[in-house]
Amino acid sequence: MNPRRAAYTQARTITLDDARLLPPGPGQVRIDVAYTGICGTDLHIFHGDMDARVSTPAVLGHEMSGRIAAIGEGVEGHAVGEPVTVMPLAWCGTCPACRSGHTHICHNLVFLGIDAPGSMQTSWTVPASTLVTLPDNLPLEHAALVEPTAVAIHDVARAGLESGEHALVVGGGPIGVLIGLVARREGARVLMVEPDPHRRAVAEDLELTVLDPGEADVTEEVTRWSGGAGAAVAFEVSGAAAGVTTAVDALATRGRLVQVAIHPRPREVNLHRFFWRELTLIGARLYERADFEAAARLLADGEIPAASLISRTEPLEHAADAFTALESATGIMKVLIDCGSAR
Amino acid sequence: MNPRRAAYTQARTITLDDARLLPPGPGQVRIDVAYTGICGTDLHIFHGDMDARVSTPAVLGHEMSGRIAAIGEGVEGHAVGEPVTVMPLAWCGTCPACRSGHTHICHNLVFLGIDAPGSMQTSWTVPASTLVTLPDNLPLEHAALVEPTAVAIHDVARAGLESGEHALVVGGGPIGVLIGLVARREGARVLMVEPDPHRRAVAEDLELTVLDPGEADVTEEVTRWSGGAGAAVAFEVSGAAAGVTTAVDALATRGRLVQVAIHPRPREVNLHRFFWRELTLIGARLYERADFEAAARLLADGEIPAASLISRTEPLEHAADAFTALESATGIMKVLIDCGSAR
Repeated sequence: MNPRRAAYTQARTITLDDARLLPPGPGQVRIDVAYTGICGTDLHIFHGDMDARVSTPAVLGHEMSGRIAAIGEGVEGHAVGEPVTVMPLAWCGTCPACRSGHTHICHNLVFLGIDAPGSMQTSWTVPASTLVTLPDNLPLEHAALVEPTAVAIHDVARAGLESGEHALVVGGGPIGVLIGLVARREGARVLMVEPDPHRRAVAEDLELTVLDPGEADVTEEVTRWSGGAGAAVAFEVSGAAAGVTTAVDALATRGRLVQVAIHPRPREVNLHRFFWRELTLIGARLYERADFEAAARLLADGEIPAASLISRTEPLEHAADAFTALESATGIMKVLIDCGSAR
Repeated sequence: MNPRRAAYTQARTITLDDARLLPPGPGQVRIDVAYTGICGTDLHIFHGDMDARVSTPAVLGHEMSGRIAAIGEGVEGHAVGEPVTVMPLAWCGTCPACRSGHTHICHNLVFLGIDAPGSMQTSWTVPASTLVTLPDNLPLEHAALVEPTAVAIHDVARAGLESGEHALVVGGGPIGVLIGLVARREGARVLMVEPDPHRRAVAEDLELTVLDPGEADVTEEVTRWSGGAGAAVAFEVSGAAAGVTTAVDALATRGRLVQVAIHPRPREVNLHRFFWRELTLIGARLYERADFEAAARLLADGEIPAASLISRTEPLEHAADAFTALESATGIMKVLIDCGSAR
C-alpha cells in the first residue's frame, strides 16, 4: 500500500493524496499510524479560522496511536512494533516559559498537527522524544483518546481538586465528559451542563448527572446540589459567552474556575463577583508528560471507558466526510480516523 | 463638647449634626475617635452610587484610630485610654463562607461604616471583638492607615508573591502605593502605572518606579523591565477597563493577576490569553485579623511611611468639603478627618 495522507488545503476542504515515506532522521522514529481522533482545534482549522497559523497543505491530527515502524540513529529505549502515542509538543527550551519549567506553554511551541505535519496519514515521522509507550493491554483504538484524556487530567490538576468537592463541568463534549470522569475518580461530586441531548445521553450512560441549560436554572440547581454553598470548582469547556457566565455564577466563595475552552474573542466577565467572593480563574492548556502517562494508564485500566466516547470510526478515505459530519456537532462525540497501518 | 457626627444624607451631601453618646452595651466598647480616613468606597457612597445599600442618615468611615473611652459588661483584656483601631467586620458565623473559615467574605457580612454606623464622629460604639490594639509608638494619625495597609497586605498574600518576582501595580492611589510598598518589602521588584502626576510624584518620593500610561507603552516597558518574561504578578487597582487589559497583557506565563479594584460592570477579559499562557486571576477582598495586626506593626516600625501618604487632615466640621475635594481625585492621596476626641 502506498503511503497516504488526508490534508487540509483550504476552508472546508480535506484532500486525500499520496505521501512520501519519510525515513526517520537522527533522533526520530517513523510510526505506522493506527488511529487519529478529530478534535475541536482540527475543526477550527477545517472552518478556515486558523489559516494565518497553518501552512497548506496541512496534515492535521494529534490524537493518535500506532506502532513504531522504523528507528533513526541515536534513538534508544524503543523497538520496532512497540505500541505508542505521541505527545505532540516541541518546545524551544530557551524562552521564559521553558526556563521556568513550563515547556508545554513554551512561547515558541511547535504543535505537531497544527504547526507541523500531524498523524492523519498512514505513516508519521516524529522526534523520539515525543513518544509515549502504551501499555500492552490498551487497544490502539482506545489509545487515540490518550491525548484528550491528558488534557482532562491536566485541567483537574490545575483546579487543585480535592475529594468531596462539588465540581461543575460546563460543556459535555469529549473533553467535558473526560473532565467529569477524571474529577469523579478524584472523589469530586460532579454535575455537568450540556445542551445537546445525544451528548447528555452519553454522559448519563457513564452515570454522570447532566443538566440541560435550556430547561434548568443552572445557578439554582447548583445551589441546591451543593447545600447552598455553590460549586468549589467549575470547568468552562463550552467556549460560549453564556458558559463563562454560568460558571462564574455557580461558584462558591473562594471557588476556582478552570478556563479550558478557547475563547477567540474577549468575554465579559463579572469581575465584581471575583472580588466579592474571592474567586480564582485558572487558565489551563495542554498537558505535561506525566499527564500523558497517567492518561494511558487510566485508559488501559478501563477507568476511562473509551468505547463509550467513540461515536464512530471512519477509514482515512472518508476523512473529509468525517469532518463535515462533525461540523453539525450534534448527536456525536469523538470520531476516529482509521489510518489503517497498525492494529 | 457635645458628641458630633458627619452623616451622608443624600447624593453629594454630608451633614454635620449632634450625635447621641451611645454607652457601650454588653460586649461593646465606646471609642473616642481620633482620625478617620476617607476611602474610595466612601466616595462611591457620597456620589449616591450605593444608595440601595446604605440607610440614611449614614455615618461613614472605617479607616480610623482612637482611644477606648468606656467598656461594656463582659469585655476583658482592654482598658480605658488604650489606643485602638477597629477591624470593621461583623460576620454571621453560619453561612458557607464562614463555615469554610473565610469569615471576611461572609455572605451576610456587616461592614461597619457602610451597613452600620462608622467612625466619622467624635464617639463610636463597636463590638469589642472588632478592636485591634495599637502599638504605643504608632501615632494615631498614622494609625488611620492600618485598615488600607491591611488591604494591601491581604492582596499581596493572595498573590503568593515570592522574593525576586516582578510585580506590576496598575493604579497608584493609596491602595496601589501601599501594595507597592508591601510587595517591595516582600522582596519583589515593583513597577507601578498611574496617570495622575501628583500620585506618581508621591510614589516616586517613596522610591517606587512609576510609568505614565499616557506616555509609555506599558506592555513594552514591562517586557524590557522583566527581561522578556513579563510580570509574574499584576495588581489591578485602577477599576478601569483599560487597567484590566494592561494587567492581563503584562503578565508572564503562569502569571497571577490580583483583582483588587471594584468593577461595578462586567469587563471584557482576554480569556484566550488566560488559556494560552495559563494565567490566573485572583479576587481579593478586605483582610483577616492577622493582616490588620501586621499592618499596625509595619506602620509602627516605619516600614510604611504613613506621613508620605497623608495629603491633608481636615477637622470634622470640614468633612463635606473634604469629600468634595477628593472627588476631583487629582493632586491628592489620603485625606484624614480629625474627629478631635483623642490624641
